[in-house]
Amino acid sequence: MIIGKSVTRVDALDKVTGRSKYTDDLCEKNALVAKIYHSTKANGVVTSIDTSEAEKIPGVVKIVTCFDVPKIYFPTAGHPWSTDPSHQDVADRLLLTDRVRFCGDDVAAVIAENEIAAKQAIAALKVEYEEYPFVLDVQEAMADGAPCLHEKYPGNVLGHSSIRKGNLEEAIKEPGLIKVDQWYDTPVVQHCHIENHICFASMENGKISVVSSTQIPHIVRRVVGQALGIPWGSVRIIKPYIGGGFGNKQDALYEPLCAYLSKVVGGRLVKLDVTREETFVSNRTRHAIRSHIISWVRPDGTFAARKLECFSNQGAYASHGHGIAAKGMNAFPQLYPCENIECDAYTVFTNMPVAGAMRGYGIPQAMFPVESQTDDIALAIGMDPVEFRRKNLMPVGYVDGFSKNENYYDTFNQCLEKGKAYIDFDRKRKEYENQTGPVRKGVGCSVFWYNTAVWPISLESASCRMVLNQDGSVQVQLAETEIGQGADTAFAQMTAATLGIPFEMVHVISCQDTDITPFGTGSYASRQTYVGGFAIKQTALLLKERILKYAYELTRMPSFNLDIKDGKIVRTTDGRELMTLGELSTEALYSLSHSEHLTSESTYQIKSNAYSFGCCFAEVEVDIPMCKVKLVNIINVHDCGQLINPALAEAQVHGGMSMGIGYALSEQLLIDAKTGKTLNDNLLDYKLSTTMDHPHLEAQFVENYEPTSAFGTKSLGEPPACPVAPAIRNAILNATGVSMYQIPMTSQALFKRFKEEELF
Amino acid sequence: MIIGKSVTRVDALDKVTGRSKYTDDLCEKNALVAKIYHSTKANGVVTSIDTSEAEKIPGVVKIVTCFDVPKIYFPTAGHPWSTDPSHQDVADRLLLTDRVRFCGDDVAAVIAENEIAAKQAIAALKVEYEEYPFVLDVQEAMADGAPCLHEKYPGNVLGHSSIRKGNLEEAIKEPGLIKVDQWYDTPVVQHCHIENHICFASMENGKISVVSSTQIPHIVRRVVGQALGIPWGSVRIIKPYIGGGFGNKQDALYEPLCAYLSKVVGGRLVKLDVTREETFVSNRTRHAIRSHIISWVRPDGTFAARKLECFSNQGAYASHGHGIAAKGMNAFPQLYPCENIECDAYTVFTNMPVAGAMRGYGIPQAMFPVESQTDDIALAIGMDPVEFRRKNLMPVGYVDGFSKNENYYDTFNQCLEKGKAYIDFDRKRKEYENQTGPVRKGVGCSVFWYNTAVWPISLESASCRMVLNQDGSVQVQLAETEIGQGADTAFAQMTAATLGIPFEMVHVISCQDTDITPFGTGSYASRQTYVGGFAIKQTALLLKERILKYAYELTRMPSFNLDIKDGKIVRTTDGRELMTLGELSTEALYSLSHSEHLTSESTYQIKSNAYSFGCCFAEVEVDIPMCKVKLVNIINVHDCGQLINPALAEAQVHGGMSMGIGYALSEQLLIDAKTGKTLNDNLLDYKLSTTMDHPHLEAQFVENYEPTSAFGTKSLGEPPACPVAPAIRNAILNATGVSMYQIPMTSQALFKRFKEEELF
Repeated sequence: MIIGKSVTRVDALDKVTGRSKYTDDLCEKNALVAKIYHSTKANGVVTSIDTSEAEKIPGVVKIVTCFDVPKIYFPTAGHPWSTDPSHQDVADRLLLTDRVRFCGDDVAAVIAENEIAAKQAIAALKVEYEEYPFVLDVQEAMADGAPCLHEKYPGNVLGHSSIRKGNLEEAIKEPGLIKVDQWYDTPVVQHCHIENHICFASMENGKISVVSSTQIPHIVRRVVGQALGIPWGSVRIIKPYIGGGFGNKQDALYEPLCAYLSKVVGGRLVKLDVTREETFVSNRTRHAIRSHIISWVRPDGTFAARKLECFSNQGAYASHGHGIAAKGMNAFPQLYPCENIECDAYTVFTNMPVAGAMRGYGIPQAMFPVESQTDDIALAIGMDPVEFRRKNLMPVGYVDGFSKNENYYDTFNQCLEKGKAYIDFDRKRKEYENQTGPVRKGVGCSVFWYNTAVWPISLESASCRMVLNQDGSVQVQLAETEIGQGADTAFAQMTAATLGIPFEMVHVISCQDTDITPFGTGSYASRQTYVGGFAIKQTALLLKERILKYAYELTRMPSFNLDIKDGKIVRTTDGRELMTLGELSTEALYSLSHSEHLTSESTYQIKSNAYSFGCCFAEVEVDIPMCKVKLVNIINVHDCGQLINPALAEAQVHGGMSMGIGYALSEQLLIDAKTGKTLNDNLLDYKLSTTMDHPHLEAQFVENYEPTSAFGTKSLGEPPACPVAPAIRNAILNATGVSMYQIPMTSQALFKRFKEEELF
Repeated sequence: MIIGKSVTRVDALDKVTGRSKYTDDLCEKNALVAKIYHSTKANGVVTSIDTSEAEKIPGVVKIVTCFDVPKIYFPTAGHPWSTDPSHQDVADRLLLTDRVRFCGDDVAAVIAENEIAAKQAIAALKVEYEEYPFVLDVQEAMADGAPCLHEKYPGNVLGHSSIRKGNLEEAIKEPGLIKVDQWYDTPVVQHCHIENHICFASMENGKISVVSSTQIPHIVRRVVGQALGIPWGSVRIIKPYIGGGFGNKQDALYEPLCAYLSKVVGGRLVKLDVTREETFVSNRTRHAIRSHIISWVRPDGTFAARKLECFSNQGAYASHGHGIAAKGMNAFPQLYPCENIECDAYTVFTNMPVAGAMRGYGIPQAMFPVESQTDDIALAIGMDPVEFRRKNLMPVGYVDGFSKNENYYDTFNQCLEKGKAYIDFDRKRKEYENQTGPVRKGVGCSVFWYNTAVWPISLESASCRMVLNQDGSVQVQLAETEIGQGADTAFAQMTAATLGIPFEMVHVISCQDTDITPFGTGSYASRQTYVGGFAIKQTALLLKERILKYAYELTRMPSFNLDIKDGKIVRTTDGRELMTLGELSTEALYSLSHSEHLTSESTYQIKSNAYSFGCCFAEVEVDIPMCKVKLVNIINVHDCGQLINPALAEAQVHGGMSMGIGYALSEQLLIDAKTGKTLNDNLLDYKLSTTMDHPHLEAQFVENYEPTSAFGTKSLGEPPACPVAPAIRNAILNATGVSMYQIPMTSQALFKRFKEEELF
């Protein structure tokens, strides 16, 4: 059985031998090079740009400024288009802007024969600004008299949503309640994918063609069309292998500008290769979200009422808008259902770099405060934190009214049991009581849930096409992109399983081309195996039907007595192998009586969603005088349904855990409060966690088959990053008795809190 | 109405501005370079190859010789595969061979870091041969004791076919018959497409991928699979724009070797760029065919009996085999039906460069003798050559027993009338009687018929896929390749007409990729608009059906009351425009209730064929003392059915006429009888006709709608080259009274004949 088998990735050999083609590998060497002049002011207006010196630089072909571009506002978020205007993303970007809103905003661009000339010309531009006061903090941005970033949003609030359930006012009057009231802060972090965003554009046959390192070719096609004010069918996006995305490339980044620049030079090939510095500042970041949670808890460990306010720092432009804060807030009442709840989420413009989608899409930002407070409450009422969770977590049979997601299994207990057993939780909790030395140990845990794909918030559909070759092998095309996660391999396994052919006979077309690739929205929302699976299964069954119909012509056996097994046409009544699929396909193609190219194509629209669950257990050693945390042991346990490829699933979890460790302990993009400039826009000063910072990363699974799914799968791409930071935080609490209220928990942050708590 | 309109080619702008990507444009600059060592002996065996000096040259990566390659014999002809072994092409090629059969055979290859190193290494190879006697002439090759090229073919006859009708022996006993008995010779010529054959290969995802300048990507895929002994589905062929082919690229040329060389260096990118010299000698040529025709004619201008023998010089390998000579022979009894006929065609191996497909596929070689003799007979019986033709040509209602082709219209008379009128034939025939000066004028004519596509000889099928975009524009994919002839434009017109959308809204995917492109056999046999048309019409109607079905969902109007006109959904009952196709498509893609990517795909198998007809009239001035012919005036008249794009049809005719003029007057690949080496393998010494040699090329059409065809079209690609040489020859006869029996009719050839006929 190929489903559930850890076969080698289809792209493994090419990737380790360097054969795989990434965007830059495909760009002709004589391409023109574009560079962007980014705003050096955090807020203001460009009053003039003197290009005269820049134009004199040999090799400069064209300088385009904010005064040249069309005044067409477009959205950048990698969301499916909606024909309902009220559901469309905020269109607040111009290709280049004179109204600069953060240090790093796009003001002008140079096209040159080579990179050196382009860089020199950028340096030679003389830009004059009228500066405005700027604001970086969400609460300050919401305050009266704060600088306003967008006229349409006085008060800077891009979005506000709320949940009201029961009667909080009344509920909190219950006597004997313990109130836990705290603010929590998460930082701005960046995706730090290996391959920076890069794209190159040219015009062919009247179309603008952009080859781009993107997760979402079909969405980018639409956005380029919108940004340039041209029909969407006249845009072609090609997506080769990409070196990661993690959500940053779930936005249209510089594809619209690059397309425009090519158009400006008559369709010549123009490459726009984004530097690491630009990636940090002028692409997208993860929203810093500040949360305020008040819980009223009964002494028996049940909730009487809860209140959540969260404030999401959007930065200067809307990108994915309010969706991320809203999603984080929605996690709260579902994870721990409570009769009386008040939640409010605000997304607020500031003069910070633009926040967008990043692995977890608001849930890591929500899990840190929520699961931190869970342990704070357990401590306050003197209850074991795992037991407190068991008492309050979403019960079996729980159904969410909006998504219709259901918790079909006793999955939380199953996951928690595995995690506890691996980390030896109960014994260690006991052992670590009453520690006194300078180095103390602790264990902590955290849970999470995640959903799968975006229905019913947005469109969920995937299309697939399959092409049968003469040797019985099959090409598979779909728009759900391989972005390093191994999707192509899972797709090949699904195809092989459904068609009844060997895995090696499936060739997934990894490169998407919007002119040709069946429509699908791309890689995000941990949708790939779930949504792609439906399209693959339906399309493979269509192909199988066509094959067996043709097999009837050749064998005179009724189709309903035929099947395909291991690449052979088999008579089910006696198991006889009648012919190979290759023989059938060759006959079908070249038959002088009935020639037919056997292919199939279909769209599957998903109107379901699925809960994915899991937990993390961490063990730390805290050196109190040194304010250093050493992560000693960590395990993630996931219920993501049926595993298609356990080895790839484990790799996916490893990546997410690593990202969670950095989020917990070291990563933070620092912005200078005086200038609004990013202080650490490089991988030396921005402290990404590395294997040197990791213990063995243990990944375990509970495989509860998801009943709504084509192959029993549900989301796994993003979940691993969600529970890690609060588990480490709770382990530090267990070790030291000190609750941390912000991440990353650096030595500086620990020093401050240890001092406040008088540990020294 | 878009059908019949001379819209600008879809690729015009890109081609004139240099944007279009050809094979070499797509090759990475760091590709390894392969060069081939060709045999310097016309017949023999390679006994040893000393590579030691070559290996020392810096930059040489790998040397592969005939002793290294697998002993897998493969065919190269661009014919559809047949599952019937008796109908398969002759498999007589190895990737490299030690048994050399012509000067230019492929013996060894060098892969190097750059072209200079590769060339130096080729020069440094020390190859020892055992030489055999060789034979260049067909009759000599058929004689007893001639050197035998292939063991399987003692006597060197690759193929022999014959036609017997009536009783010739008896028929020629009829009293009063005039016997005309003559031998005619046509030369070896070469295609001389602008872009030499070039390909580059690499391995990706376990597949061998070859980007190639070929007319037949899907066939080349199969041949590469055969040659390397690997499954056909593990081969991927990509065909970008190509700079002409004319049949030379209807063979697998160096794609199999290039694929093998890449495999030998572990899948690295290897480029094989063929020089002009290699194109002349080691690609394919047009068969030289020697014909012997005896006609027994009654004084009233009717045929009593005819006998044809033709001998086709195949060169060293089978390539397209006997098909070309057989096709030429088959033209004979159909053009001038006669009760008593004996025909024999022989295809014979010699130690000449390999002959293959070339525009006209045997018909230019047949029309020269047949139509020369037509005029010789008319002269002999004292009849006007046009009247003689009218009397004997295939009559209206004629049906060929094999192809079922029918002559539906009085097309020959219609074409002849137009040609006569343009050239002022009757008046000039009279005027040019009894000329005596040194410079004399003459007019001549020739007719031809041609068929369309290859059914019932081989498989004829084409597949098509269409993809609807959000703006209502459509991508069209099919494997029938654009090779410069304008097929993409005709396809776009057909699609627009069938779907009811503006021409500009059709995007034909010009680049074929066998992994993705629906199966079709490629560009040859003047099949494109005929065969492609069926697939396009059927697929467009399928898409239209899907569109109108979706329109029902949106408009609640029954599909049978809906149509698409000018890109809009129209209610036929009152003509109201209900919505644009773009609105429908956008709703269909993004609908939250029913999302569907509207595409269609289908295979159309053709089981018909169609006669295409035409004639050529030429006027010449012959300077007898100088033995020089000046072409003064020329017209081709074609009945190729409905014209899709008259301007492109005219361009196609111009190209064919130019090729015919060169064939008549100047082109000939000369082989040294002493060594077997080609003497003029370059465009300086090989006299291709140029615009300097052409008068105005007049192209006129008779548009008799072909009733078997999807759009009323039939073949036009090859026909224009067929009638030109004999028309010029007959004009020379009219001017001088001298019958020429071979082409090209160079000064040397004219001098010889004028001397024989005592003109001086």
